[in-house]
Amino acid sequence: MTPTTFTQDQIASLGARAETMVNSLGTVSAEPDRLVRLFLTPEHRRAADRVAGWMRAAGLTVSEDALGTVRGRLDGPGKKRLLIGSHIDTVINAGMYDGPFGVIAGILAAEHFHAKRLTFGIDVLAFGDEEGSRFPATLSSSSACAGIFRTENLQLADRNGVTLADALHAYGKSPDDIAAAAYARDEAAAYVEVHIEQGPVLEARKQPLGVVTAIIGQTYLNVEFLGEAGHAGTVPMLLRRDALAGAAEAMLLGETLARETKGEVVATVGRIAVAPGATNVIPANVVAIFDIRSGSESARAKLVDTVKAGIRGIADRRHLGLTITSPREVATTPCDAQVQDRFADAVLALGAEPLRLGSGAGHDGQAMAKLCPIGMLFVRCRGGISHNPMEYANPQDLGLAVAALIGFIERFEPEKLG
Amino acid sequence: MTPTTFTQDQIASLGARAETMVNSLGTVSAEPDRLVRLFLTPEHRRAADRVAGWMRAAGLTVSEDALGTVRGRLDGPGKKRLLIGSHIDTVINAGMYDGPFGVIAGILAAEHFHAKRLTFGIDVLAFGDEEGSRFPATLSSSSACAGIFRTENLQLADRNGVTLADALHAYGKSPDDIAAAAYARDEAAAYVEVHIEQGPVLEARKQPLGVVTAIIGQTYLNVEFLGEAGHAGTVPMLLRRDALAGAAEAMLLGETLARETKGEVVATVGRIAVAPGATNVIPANVVAIFDIRSGSESARAKLVDTVKAGIRGIADRRHLGLTITSPREVATTPCDAQVQDRFADAVLALGAEPLRLGSGAGHDGQAMAKLCPIGMLFVRCRGGISHNPMEYANPQDLGLAVAALIGFIERFEPEKLG
Repeated sequence: MTPTTFTQDQIASLGARAETMVNSLGTVSAEPDRLVRLFLTPEHRRAADRVAGWMRAAGLTVSEDALGTVRGRLDGPGKKRLLIGSHIDTVINAGMYDGPFGVIAGILAAEHFHAKRLTFGIDVLAFGDEEGSRFPATLSSSSACAGIFRTENLQLADRNGVTLADALHAYGKSPDDIAAAAYARDEAAAYVEVHIEQGPVLEARKQPLGVVTAIIGQTYLNVEFLGEAGHAGTVPMLLRRDALAGAAEAMLLGETLARETKGEVVATVGRIAVAPGATNVIPANVVAIFDIRSGSESARAKLVDTVKAGIRGIADRRHLGLTITSPREVATTPCDAQVQDRFADAVLALGAEPLRLGSGAGHDGQAMAKLCPIGMLFVRCRGGISHNPMEYANPQDLGLAVAALIGFIERFEPEKLG
Repeated sequence: MTPTTFTQDQIASLGARAETMVNSLGTVSAEPDRLVRLFLTPEHRRAADRVAGWMRAAGLTVSEDALGTVRGRLDGPGKKRLLIGSHIDTVINAGMYDGPFGVIAGILAAEHFHAKRLTFGIDVLAFGDEEGSRFPATLSSSSACAGIFRTENLQLADRNGVTLADALHAYGKSPDDIAAAAYARDEAAAYVEVHIEQGPVLEARKQPLGVVTAIIGQTYLNVEFLGEAGHAGTVPMLLRRDALAGAAEAMLLGETLARETKGEVVATVGRIAVAPGATNVIPANVVAIFDIRSGSESARAKLVDTVKAGIRGIADRRHLGLTITSPREVATTPCDAQVQDRFADAVLALGAEPLRLGSGAGHDGQAMAKLCPIGMLFVRCRGGISHNPMEYANPQDLGLAVAALIGFIERFEPEKLG
């Protein structure tokens, strides 16, 4: 298929339509003053209905699976179909772009191909649980599509004690139908998703779009230092075993080592607990949680080892007790090379630089990768801000993203996937 | 007066008596399973009565002032009297030694002089509010004796809304009599106090007793770093403004600079608040409270300046906002040189090394210093532990402390005070 050449007006028009739709979904909330749209709630129902209406208007055939995922289908000549999706649930006090824009981009792109002849079909998927804001699990919807939904998760309860099974029933669904939500492996050619970056890289590099190389892996290190409490006025510096001073040294070590990877790994301590926590008492016990992420499994493993070894040295030198556990390990999900390259071609054709970057946040692609090759296109967002009402992407960038997704579909060759 | 030469048996006997009395007061508590004895409570009354009984048995004349301070008096030939005191209130879940042992040492020492002829009188003082555990003020009792009680403090309320004025009335006292509790300046020759060290220096130096050079001054620095929240996975290391990383660097700087003073200054961060405080969010706002203490006003001022300058440099380099305030400033209270020297002579006569050290904790001497010269003798306590049921000093050391206090009184010459 000859790729479309977009005029500035066409891009502006796509962007304006996308922004209107984002704003429209942004009004569907459980609360009047902030955006809260949780899985399997009346708000989810209203948002799903609005999305289904848009899909029908775009010429797609709409259905809904056992987890409430709305599917807009454009049939192709054979069984193969490209899956394009994102989610319509939100965090509490959310922005309007995280999730909905990816669904909207999929609908606008699919609409473009309504009267055209593709060699494969398209399913646009609006997942209902990516954030995990209601139940203590994430990616429930995409896990069902990928055929990896864990049945035991049906017993997970929300803050009000309602289980996922109960909530599905109340939403008019039956857990018995979950297995049928899974795509066959020879049906799903690939899964792609357009999403705001939720980080500052594209803005810093002055680029509207980025091609995602991987959804990066993550290790949590729970680092506990055990020192000795003492009076802040009476214990000489050299007789102290100050757990917080040890933790401070460990935090700086983590930062320094991550910086030395020159962008390959990031390390963060966002939470720290200090006991006893009185201004005039030397801290006896400090727990710091290190969040270490990288697009490279080996780089992350290496940094985790180096940080752990460095922390052991700090504890030894300071005569502090030390316990390190790893309560969370998520492997890196690489994006398919051909998918990346076709996204890059489409971005280049729009006159932008196809910057490659990892996704530091989790996405439905992590589940979908168990089914088929995946890829993602990132859109610049203001200040890198997300999970916040200040979240914003300008309509010009939204239009470019839709155009790039169209360009990707035009260039996509399922038979060439590795 | 020819100083007494103590035999080992005499010291052991003084220690055993002191320990028995400490244990006896240790049973006077508001709770059966832990030691809690707050100002102007029924427990305070019972402890005061027990102390008064001991004073009478030691040949002292007992009275009680408007703040409930029990005074055991041994008259001398003139108006001058040496004040020996400590407190009988406790923190919540206290040890038995902090306060009571100083009162007991005073009683046992005064008893020694009952049949002897001193050139000055002795008042043993059992203060009821040193810890400030009930009302939000400390040193109320000694402030009244020193003539610096702040009348507005009568309106301070405890956790149950009972004001100090109400509590005094309920204890059978009248605020009208507070002024009469103050000693005349020409009456108070000096104030001395024996106290457990509440720190590890004597234990580390293998010495039972220490001569206090000063009750050290204190500065609190409230250091607030303002960075930028961001996703722990999506913001590259070099684009971060991590308030906790800045605070970690500041904490290590404070520790390093304090260590470099070689014992002159101590610096501690015991409390830190991190916002938003989520494991996957780069900290935007961190408040760390630096507690800086020194026996030298100039050394403390210098360290405060150096720490502030260093922290400003850290904030500048990391592009963090910074606010530093100083919510607490307490000047150093020096101990009188003659009092120190006579304590040192008495310690030396007992075959111990008269180690000089600052008191990092606050004491009634801070109030009494407004009235007269002061001095303190520290007793080794196990592990430096205090404000804790594990608090302990061995009876041999208690006996040496009482003997040293007796030796001090024998060597004390009020007319030679500067």
